[in-house]
Amino acid sequence: MSEVAGKIATQAGAFMLEKPLGGRGVLLGGVPGVAAANVMVIGGGVVGFNAASIAIGMEADVFVFDRDIDRLRELDVAFAGRASTVYSSVLAVEEMLPRVDLVIGAVLVHGARAPYVIRREQLALMKENAVLVDVSIDQGGCFETSRPTTHSDPTYEVDGITHYCVANMPGAVPITSTYALTNATLPYVLALADLGLEAAVQRHPGLLGGVNVAGGHVTHAAVAEATGAALVPLAEALASGARPPVPSPRP
Amino acid sequence: MSEVAGKIATQAGAFMLEKPLGGRGVLLGGVPGVAAANVMVIGGGVVGFNAASIAIGMEADVFVFDRDIDRLRELDVAFAGRASTVYSSVLAVEEMLPRVDLVIGAVLVHGARAPYVIRREQLALMKENAVLVDVSIDQGGCFETSRPTTHSDPTYEVDGITHYCVANMPGAVPITSTYALTNATLPYVLALADLGLEAAVQRHPGLLGGVNVAGGHVTHAAVAEATGAALVPLAEALASGARPPVPSPRP
Amino acid sequence: MSEVAGKIATQAGAFMLEKPLGGRGVLLGGVPGVAAANVMVIGGGVVGFNAASIAIGMEADVFVFDRDIDRLRELDVAFAGRASTVYSSVLAVEEMLPRVDLVIGAVLVHGARAPYVIRREQLALMKENAVLVDVSIDQGGCFETSRPTTHSDPTYEVDGITHYCVANMPGAVPITSTYALTNATLPYVLALADLGLEAAVQRHPGLLGGVNVAGGHVTHAAVAEATGAALVPLAEALASGARPPVPSPRP
Amino acid sequence: MSEVAGKIATQAGAFMLEKPLGGRGVLLGGVPGVAAANVMVIGGGVVGFNAASIAIGMEADVFVFDRDIDRLRELDVAFAGRASTVYSSVLAVEEMLPRVDLVIGAVLVHGARAPYVIRREQLALMKENAVLVDVSIDQGGCFETSRPTTHSDPTYEVDGITHYCVANMPGAVPITSTYALTNATLPYVLALADLGLEAAVQRHPGLLGGVNVAGGHVTHAAVAEATGAALVPLAEALASGARPPVPSPRP
Amino acid sequence: MSEVAGKIATQAGAFMLEKPLGGRGVLLGGVPGVAAANVMVIGGGVVGFNAASIAIGMEADVFVFDRDIDRLRELDVAFAGRASTVYSSVLAVEEMLPRVDLVIGAVLVHGARAPYVIRREQLALMKENAVLVDVSIDQGGCFETSRPTTHSDPTYEVDGITHYCVANMPGAVPITSTYALTNATLPYVLALADLGLEAAVQRHPGLLGGVNVAGGHVTHAAVAEATGAALVPLAEALASGARPPVPSPRP
Amino acid sequence: MSEVAGKIATQAGAFMLEKPLGGRGVLLGGVPGVAAANVMVIGGGVVGFNAASIAIGMEADVFVFDRDIDRLRELDVAFAGRASTVYSSVLAVEEMLPRVDLVIGAVLVHGARAPYVIRREQLALMKENAVLVDVSIDQGGCFETSRPTTHSDPTYEVDGITHYCVANMPGAVPITSTYALTNATLPYVLALADLGLEAAVQRHPGLLGGVNVAGGHVTHAAVAEATGAALVPLAEALASGARPPVPSPRP
Repeated sequence: MSEVAGKIATQAGAFMLEKPLGGRGVLLGGVPGVAAANVMVIGGGVVGFNAASIAIGMEADVFVFDRDIDRLRELDVAFAGRASTVYSSVLAVEEMLPRVDLVIGAVLVHGARAPYVIRREQLALMKENAVLVDVSIDQGGCFETSRPTTHSDPTYEVDGITHYCVANMPGAVPITSTYALTNATLPYVLALADLGLEAAVQRHPGLLGGVNVAGGHVTHAAVAEATGAALVPLAEALASGARPPVPSPRP
Repeated sequence: MSEVAGKIATQAGAFMLEKPLGGRGVLLGGVPGVAAANVMVIGGGVVGFNAASIAIGMEADVFVFDRDIDRLRELDVAFAGRASTVYSSVLAVEEMLPRVDLVIGAVLVHGARAPYVIRREQLALMKENAVLVDVSIDQGGCFETSRPTTHSDPTYEVDGITHYCVANMPGAVPITSTYALTNATLPYVLALADLGLEAAVQRHPGLLGGVNVAGGHVTHAAVAEATGAALVPLAEALASGARPPVPSPRP
Repeated sequence: MSEVAGKIATQAGAFMLEKPLGGRGVLLGGVPGVAAANVMVIGGGVVGFNAASIAIGMEADVFVFDRDIDRLRELDVAFAGRASTVYSSVLAVEEMLPRVDLVIGAVLVHGARAPYVIRREQLALMKENAVLVDVSIDQGGCFETSRPTTHSDPTYEVDGITHYCVANMPGAVPITSTYALTNATLPYVLALADLGLEAAVQRHPGLLGGVNVAGGHVTHAAVAEATGAALVPLAEALASGARPPVPSPRP
Repeated sequence: MSEVAGKIATQAGAFMLEKPLGGRGVLLGGVPGVAAANVMVIGGGVVGFNAASIAIGMEADVFVFDRDIDRLRELDVAFAGRASTVYSSVLAVEEMLPRVDLVIGAVLVHGARAPYVIRREQLALMKENAVLVDVSIDQGGCFETSRPTTHSDPTYEVDGITHYCVANMPGAVPITSTYALTNATLPYVLALADLGLEAAVQRHPGLLGGVNVAGGHVTHAAVAEATGAALVPLAEALASGARPPVPSPRP
Repeated sequence: MSEVAGKIATQAGAFMLEKPLGGRGVLLGGVPGVAAANVMVIGGGVVGFNAASIAIGMEADVFVFDRDIDRLRELDVAFAGRASTVYSSVLAVEEMLPRVDLVIGAVLVHGARAPYVIRREQLALMKENAVLVDVSIDQGGCFETSRPTTHSDPTYEVDGITHYCVANMPGAVPITSTYALTNATLPYVLALADLGLEAAVQRHPGLLGGVNVAGGHVTHAAVAEATGAALVPLAEALASGARPPVPSPRP
Repeated sequence: MSEVAGKIATQAGAFMLEKPLGGRGVLLGGVPGVAAANVMVIGGGVVGFNAASIAIGMEADVFVFDRDIDRLRELDVAFAGRASTVYSSVLAVEEMLPRVDLVIGAVLVHGARAPYVIRREQLALMKENAVLVDVSIDQGGCFETSRPTTHSDPTYEVDGITHYCVANMPGAVPITSTYALTNATLPYVLALADLGLEAAVQRHPGLLGGVNVAGGHVTHAAVAEATGAALVPLAEALASGARPPVPSPRP
């Protein structure tokens, strides 16, 4: 879903830059005689790459910030001069903020809260009514001033800066997202249906972490802890053969 | 302003395709494993070219319809295979409608009402919740079912099709539009300020049609008719030398 | 040789689409006012990528089908919006077939027969005289109706669909293919010539699977089985030092 | 139809370069480790531009020759460094011939025989089994050794060089060509049907040269001469009002 | 020669930005993690377009300034989002100067001195050791502080800004320039050689302004004035038939 | 720093091709009517890729030579037909040399002297005043005739060929290079400052090879050998706890 999130973030940001939506009233790509807007993408992973690609396609001037120099090298080859890559530091961010019209926060840390890449006091460096789009909002947000919003009321303003922090952005394009999700999960579903749990887990070890209950035993640590049930290793649970009697309801 | 209108039409259309906004819920550029959306741009002038360019940049599949074969040739060179050009006919339009997700109407006829390129009964050919964006709305609209809307309530639905018909779309990006407009008009303003009316009109004959009053005489036919004043040709009015006494207020 | 096969498949397909060759009589890239043809590439490996690249270069509308979502992501980055990637399923294939002019089958499974991606009854979904090019023909073909043909009689027709299934397509461009093959094999040849068999095999373990006979012993299982000779492990054969006497002819 | 002719010329040339078809056996785009083939397009008009564009898309090294320096400038902008433009002279042609794999002759002179751009003795400068494609063949051919061929027997060899000189190349893609032709002629047909001859000719002066008979009078000089009828200027013929009696058969 | 001048200006500017040559010590295209340099091209004619194209190719961020809004529209189409176009005004120039690393002055006014687009006091707005390249130097220069230099001593410094103002830049690539010049002039030379003066002038009216002497008469006003000879209109001189006696040397 | 070296090599080469600098006097990109120059890049690593990218951007015809077929495949995808890749052999190099205007040597072997890819006698195959740029000069040079030069006297001539062999080319753009270097080293510096040596080495094992002295013991073999001190393994040195007394100066 990262591709969906990245692409949709830029199109939302472009739209929010329109004056009636609360933005500065500038067009990403500029027009003949009027320079393009500056777009800053913080985070060069899949989300950031897709956000930047759409921004390039909309003819903006694009700057991608990241701290992984190897990833920046990959991006540099992929962009072929159509975007600049910048090693992210407080100094580099603060030098860029006064010039940008749109910032897309795409800082995702696996299994952890996103770090803040823009603090509240740094908003004062930005142009009035510049737009922040926080794709990391599902992980807590990567701007200090981010808080989740909804499609029916997508933006709010802090210190003159428009924030677009809709949670679950890919949900806005359910046809695209459903196909994308199905494509990614179908092989596992088919394996489970065709092979049964045991063989499917062997073929796709990635399934292991998703088995909560097997052979009547709880096999997932978090579930065991939450329900007070005994935790049984998956192999043992699968080997236990006969399914246990349906448990009586807990009092 | 045509460049502004064309670029903004595509970004509005992309956004309106989001489900919460009333659209089909598809992403223009698709994602890996999910094909791109189909965008149909009717009218290959400056507006249509810019709308198509942004749609290409957003990675959609783009089809530009026009009836001017010479213009289609120019577009074909400019797009270099990134968009198809199609000779517009009722048949061609009706073959395309079932496949499109977004239609941008950019049919502008100088000084005349835009013709209808999609009639109400043809909406039935389209996918549910496909989106129409009518850039021709300021000239009456090029879809039969178009009627002007505003940024605060930009869309409405007819027969399951979302219509986005905001009048004066460039007004949404006033910074970009004001610079663009100033750039286009500044040479005339400077000529008037530096040279005076007579010399400015000689250097820029295009100014001629804009002179309403000169040397105290009404020099524009429509103004003369509307006010009941005598119409004096511009050359004569300018030659009349002395300014007439300030007219007394009309009763 | 996969690059050769992929590129040559598209140029053959484009040519076979000409009417006198049995095709529909359409031009891949279209012309101003006439939309481009649709090209479907099934299989997104090196063959499919190269076939798609040339089809894009010939200005067709290109759709690449594969079931490896990670590979589709790589292709999506490489194509940068110039082709759509589609997760391959029976449904997706059948939705596409009525629209395509040219299908390139590039489904290669290492060491196995290619699976059928289009069955005979699905041909009925296609436009009359659409063209199928089967690059997998050397592995049995990926269309149910494929059978090997030759350059002197390259196509045949089944149910109104033109089939181009020339075996060993790269053989048609021997200058290019010979250089490509030499480039790929020269390092091994040089290693064998410079180092002798034992050291060469150590430096390039990939050579191991190609040694049939060493030190007078048969070292390859299939050869041993086919000739009735005893199978000797390569290390042992090499260590055996003295070459055995030239064997007397088998009776 | 020039776009059709140019694009089809390159795809035919690419195919004819295959060894079994009589060509050198090289692939236009090369492969990793093997450089691309060199394609020389003589004539930078619409035919040549389209031929070159497809050759670029097929990843060849492309050189476009013309003598119109203003046209070369336009091409240089359009190709943006993807092809070289060369001022055509005997010297420049002879320097290029030893390096080229495919030559596309696209020299069209309105209403005149195409001049020879490669003479028979210059064939000796070329690589063995290089391919010549003569798009000018309908105007007599632009290579001295060209003579018209057909799709059923498209090539012949002179001095070791393969010649592809199929007359009416666009006829090979009748679907594309018919649409293209219809698009170009439909406005005239509609004008004639809607307005009648007199008004249609006034709106589209280009129709003038195509009127053979009007108001019962022969209005075209060549027809008058061929039939022995009196030539009546079109205006007079249209003004003559009443249709003359049906003429008696000529003896 | 404008294409030569434009392309060579950027490559000289890139080189002069190296520290040992007196520049800031930045690389036009940046590297992964370090943003590209900013290049400002003043003047969007053929020189400016070519200078900008090479700067884009070297992966810089490019801004082209001009006052001709129609030309900016053409450039915008040609650059397709890879460079911004800016309407040139004192304000716009002064806003850009603090950010640029390289300025290329390409302001050419036919038959007139180039106007100053950067005045001495504006140099203070620029970064230390930024580089100015003045392609207009052959027409007097478009920076107030420009003065002609030579290839052996190409730069000098004013107020901390490096100036590269080599006169006749195309002279540095004589092979390219000589071919370019020959290509442009050869048609005229051939016409003179094949047709004689009178017919050549009729076919190429552009030759008219270059005829100084004909039929023994001075036909060019400036030459007549400079030599004191009588001025005879070209037609009359050519018609005078017999060549006059060789004039005796002037005392 | 390889990206810096590659990009700067091409811009230096382009400049050195100017006649007053000792080059042939050709422009990399050619102009309308004059074909582009041929650039040969030997070595397809990061340096070579960047050198080639800039040469493509300057509109040259580019050929990249390497012996790693897998790398050539990657480059082929990245260049997308804008450069040819060639498997490097003595034969292939000698076939190319007569045609090239600029050769960039980018052959880097980790921790070893660069091999010679062009020998002195092969210079005779080249055009007079062609230019060699040796990026491998810091490793001994990859042309037999290379010897290190400086920015103040960057080139010399051998057998009519201009050599540009400035050592430490990235030093010419210190702003870009310093940022690039800081970006690459900052994570290590921060880890050392934040965590202390022991923990930093655990987090970044790459630091291991750079520790010369720890806990008062010499931990680097080369340093131990050069100073005569005892070599102590890093783990042991770190574990030794108390810092030893400051050693008395060696006699």
